[in-house]
Amino acid sequence: MINRDIANEWFLDEESCHRVIMHRTREQVVSVRTAHQHVKVVDTYNLGRVLILDNKIQSAETDEYIYHECLVHPAMMRHGSPTTVLVLGGGEGATLREVLKYRQVAQVTMVDIDEELVRLCDHYLEAWHRGAFKDPRVTLVFDDAAEFVTRHKDTYDVIIMDINDPVSGGPAAALYTKELFDVLKGLMHRGSVLATQAVEVFFDESDRHSVLHRTLSMSFGSVESYCEYVPSFGCMWGFLLCSDGPRASSMSEENIERAIGRLVSGALRFYDGEAHRRIFSLPKMVREMLARQTTISTAAAPMHVYG
Amino acid sequence: MINRDIANEWFLDEESCHRVIMHRTREQVVSVRTAHQHVKVVDTYNLGRVLILDNKIQSAETDEYIYHECLVHPAMMRHGSPTTVLVLGGGEGATLREVLKYRQVAQVTMVDIDEELVRLCDHYLEAWHRGAFKDPRVTLVFDDAAEFVTRHKDTYDVIIMDINDPVSGGPAAALYTKELFDVLKGLMHRGSVLATQAVEVFFDESDRHSVLHRTLSMSFGSVESYCEYVPSFGCMWGFLLCSDGPRASSMSEENIERAIGRLVSGALRFYDGEAHRRIFSLPKMVREMLARQTTISTAAAPMHVYG
Amino acid sequence: MINRDIANEWFLDEESCHRVIMHRTREQVVSVRTAHQHVKVVDTYNLGRVLILDNKIQSAETDEYIYHECLVHPAMMRHGSPTTVLVLGGGEGATLREVLKYRQVAQVTMVDIDEELVRLCDHYLEAWHRGAFKDPRVTLVFDDAAEFVTRHKDTYDVIIMDINDPVSGGPAAALYTKELFDVLKGLMHRGSVLATQAVEVFFDESDRHSVLHRTLSMSFGSVESYCEYVPSFGCMWGFLLCSDGPRASSMSEENIERAIGRLVSGALRFYDGEAHRRIFSLPKMVREMLARQTTISTAAAPMHVYG
Amino acid sequence: MINRDIANEWFLDEESCHRVIMHRTREQVVSVRTAHQHVKVVDTYNLGRVLILDNKIQSAETDEYIYHECLVHPAMMRHGSPTTVLVLGGGEGATLREVLKYRQVAQVTMVDIDEELVRLCDHYLEAWHRGAFKDPRVTLVFDDAAEFVTRHKDTYDVIIMDINDPVSGGPAAALYTKELFDVLKGLMHRGSVLATQAVEVFFDESDRHSVLHRTLSMSFGSVESYCEYVPSFGCMWGFLLCSDGPRASSMSEENIERAIGRLVSGALRFYDGEAHRRIFSLPKMVREMLARQTTISTAAAPMHVYG
Repeated sequence: MINRDIANEWFLDEESCHRVIMHRTREQVVSVRTAHQHVKVVDTYNLGRVLILDNKIQSAETDEYIYHECLVHPAMMRHGSPTTVLVLGGGEGATLREVLKYRQVAQVTMVDIDEELVRLCDHYLEAWHRGAFKDPRVTLVFDDAAEFVTRHKDTYDVIIMDINDPVSGGPAAALYTKELFDVLKGLMHRGSVLATQAVEVFFDESDRHSVLHRTLSMSFGSVESYCEYVPSFGCMWGFLLCSDGPRASSMSEENIERAIGRLVSGALRFYDGEAHRRIFSLPKMVREMLARQTTISTAAAPMHVYG
Repeated sequence: MINRDIANEWFLDEESCHRVIMHRTREQVVSVRTAHQHVKVVDTYNLGRVLILDNKIQSAETDEYIYHECLVHPAMMRHGSPTTVLVLGGGEGATLREVLKYRQVAQVTMVDIDEELVRLCDHYLEAWHRGAFKDPRVTLVFDDAAEFVTRHKDTYDVIIMDINDPVSGGPAAALYTKELFDVLKGLMHRGSVLATQAVEVFFDESDRHSVLHRTLSMSFGSVESYCEYVPSFGCMWGFLLCSDGPRASSMSEENIERAIGRLVSGALRFYDGEAHRRIFSLPKMVREMLARQTTISTAAAPMHVYG
Repeated sequence: MINRDIANEWFLDEESCHRVIMHRTREQVVSVRTAHQHVKVVDTYNLGRVLILDNKIQSAETDEYIYHECLVHPAMMRHGSPTTVLVLGGGEGATLREVLKYRQVAQVTMVDIDEELVRLCDHYLEAWHRGAFKDPRVTLVFDDAAEFVTRHKDTYDVIIMDINDPVSGGPAAALYTKELFDVLKGLMHRGSVLATQAVEVFFDESDRHSVLHRTLSMSFGSVESYCEYVPSFGCMWGFLLCSDGPRASSMSEENIERAIGRLVSGALRFYDGEAHRRIFSLPKMVREMLARQTTISTAAAPMHVYG
Repeated sequence: MINRDIANEWFLDEESCHRVIMHRTREQVVSVRTAHQHVKVVDTYNLGRVLILDNKIQSAETDEYIYHECLVHPAMMRHGSPTTVLVLGGGEGATLREVLKYRQVAQVTMVDIDEELVRLCDHYLEAWHRGAFKDPRVTLVFDDAAEFVTRHKDTYDVIIMDINDPVSGGPAAALYTKELFDVLKGLMHRGSVLATQAVEVFFDESDRHSVLHRTLSMSFGSVESYCEYVPSFGCMWGFLLCSDGPRASSMSEENIERAIGRLVSGALRFYDGEAHRRIFSLPKMVREMLARQTTISTAAAPMHVYG
């Protein structure tokens, strides 16, 4: 029987042509077509508030901390004493929020193409940004990430790419390419670290994460895949950590714990020494997939994901 | 591939445990829990604006005229010169709109339990009511229909029931019973006509329309079923016309056309002489179902529909 | 909660990009890719057994009689004493079944492109054909309908087109065109009648039924639209009756009843005099749509429906 | 547009009242109601062949190895030289398959309540069992697991519970309780190890995995949670490893690798030293949830999951 107390409206998250996750939505909070994308904020029963861009879930109130802590902390830990950080994308402000937990961070530049999106997140996603946009250490730039990094010559201790998945015809289609990564490398000095979200990790030949891994391996001495299950994404989510220095996976739990105590103010929910060990330890078939991938993503033949 | 220009949010209209109609929704217009029900107005791609009460589609911009013209005009035609009309329910104002097209109508009383619903419809469903709520001939009463008709002693030329389906536990559960119909009969004089929406017409033993038909036949000399397909309801919708006078189905097309010319100002989209003939002519198996139904709906054992 | 006694598998009938009807399926009966199409037979809870061709419901056990009686009887009645009948398509055998109820029918030729489909229907859809394929009056031809009618020169009293909807790229894409209809006319003598299924009847500019109406009007003196709601199709289904003789809609109920008594052996479930009157009486907006449609379907620009 | 080459039938995996995963099914392979449950085997596009029991996915061809290697190998490794193994449930035969890779294993008793299920798996799921049912070391017992373990007094080196989730009213409802776990402990000697699948790992108060953890902690000196994402389950899946000896999580990667070399014949796809480290390293919020859970599952108040 129909439950009259529960809405019968559903957001369909089309993971692929053959798998669709239906999320029951309680209420629509806002729906706006900005100059760059369609922004929806909805309240759901199972994921709390959810940000949806162009029909894809970007992050959800109940588990965004998993994604954002994974994206930010390994890079910051690997660097050891970051003071300047560049965030590309990251409209929700949660990446900023995590970066600003580092006491030594003096200057964060965040570049997002969509000013209206950031204004909407500032208004509707307080649980995400926690006021980060107003932190005096933050410089907000509304610009195309590719153009910004091409034009600017500053270097940063840590660069974090928190950009939409590259879908064919979408705004991020050209950003996950060797050419763009090489430009990013130009903004890094000795000791700098780059972290990027790196799409779903599959376990078979349709895996795109390994293409990004392989692509970044052309430019960096150390490229490490790590991953965690993010419920609202409905899959194992991949990340990549790149530098020309030591590997993050070689840091001991104890060192991570000590560094957190020294560097971070404010609580972490997902990440600590044991979680670090977890996410950098990969299943055997994932490592095998990384090893046998030979495709790289270039401007001429950029890698795309379904969407 | 996902179409980034089309929303991937769907309203699921659960017709039964085994059949669900998915309507893609473009935008939510408003969502309010009133004292009586959950009111949603959404904009869809295939049905235009849609009013949803407690997860059931009430009417849709693109085809509400089919339902409302079917509900109102046969009764008005059968009466021939209605001046006083009682509308029970009808929150959208479209039943009023159709009634007010009759030049001779001097007084319409509309009784709806949900004042907030009517205010929302007044604001968001202009395409339905076309200003009907402000017509000087209209008296709006916010009251429980069963209580109103029990308390009042006026009589009316035409009574129109435009009330939610009776779902178990819902606000209309007790309204579609012999006891309530007998009360309504007390508000009718010689020549009065009663029309009611009368749920989906099935063709098998699960048919509930025939129960209403049978129930009303206990109280009225003439009870006529008629039906039309309403796309937004996803089924053949039933209506019942009751009186102690002649049958509407015996009116000729020509008489209907003449009466429309004489009585109605403003255009009709669905209804005319040929449409009248259509809706009162029933498929053989529907007439057989009406003939073999023996169940009646009473206060002690009220008829319910899925929902 | 999940009901462990009811399957959670659903057939999604995609009516359009914006409306999908979900039917819960109990069991798959058979699934075969023939040389021409994908044939599935499934048992459902709400529609009984269902035949699905290339992901579209063709007919359902619980209501196929509505469709097949509508398709066959008006044409047979209009003719008055049919002895030779040509059926194009009609793989389920239910069109045959209805035709064979006419005592005077001496010879029925049925042309279906898909022999394997007919064999499957013969085996799995006994409730449809009732042994019709074995009737000595029937000649089964497995051939492309367009080629058959182009090659043959016989004439028939009644021709019935029971062919898949024309979807872009589908096997029936070229059959619903002026050119093909003109070929069919060549197989008709004075007094012959042609009936065809004629896709969903919409009420707005997306209506394709009216295109078929208009197209046939180029070739026949009398073209009549009629329609009925078919639950398993989830919409108002259209048919067209064409001849150069009198109109079926002018036949009185009494004449229909008399003719049924005289011509038909075996019971009808949907069709009789009153049902005839019903289906040939159209809502006003449908007649208006027919009147204003100017597009015709030609081999160069054939009409398509969604699918 | 509808893709005529892809079936439009979907299995709906209802994870909760608010989240449903739709899997497109290519073909139904078999559907049987056994004495204990409804067994379906379907072929899908994204998961290969899938076994569905009472509307819940049990395992999928493309990723069953993740689940089964996680379930079996940590327990076998922790024991170090298992020769006798008891498998409760495990109808697909894949748990057997993994157990039989250990050269020292001399005797495996598998107890499944549903003989017909095992026969179906033997026939249709060769990719799972790889002939394991016919291995001379295997004794198949068709019995209720609770009754079997209560009646028998043998002890085993390793006990593996591969039993359906406890859903209210389902066959496994009473198996995940303190009372049953205590009976299992009676079948263990010094050095024995128990592993069980342990439902989805949530990160909030709805978490049921932690109830199992807490319950087992009443009976065993060492209880370790571990988890991995299993795509076909659409969630992070939990397992529990119990003994009165040392903790598996303290085994080094090198020791695991050495033990695999020594004990295992045949390839592993998911599990190795690094994977072992991964699955036993838990996110911070999961450890916090385990620490604060106080509910235990008893025969009087057994823990249930949605279903």
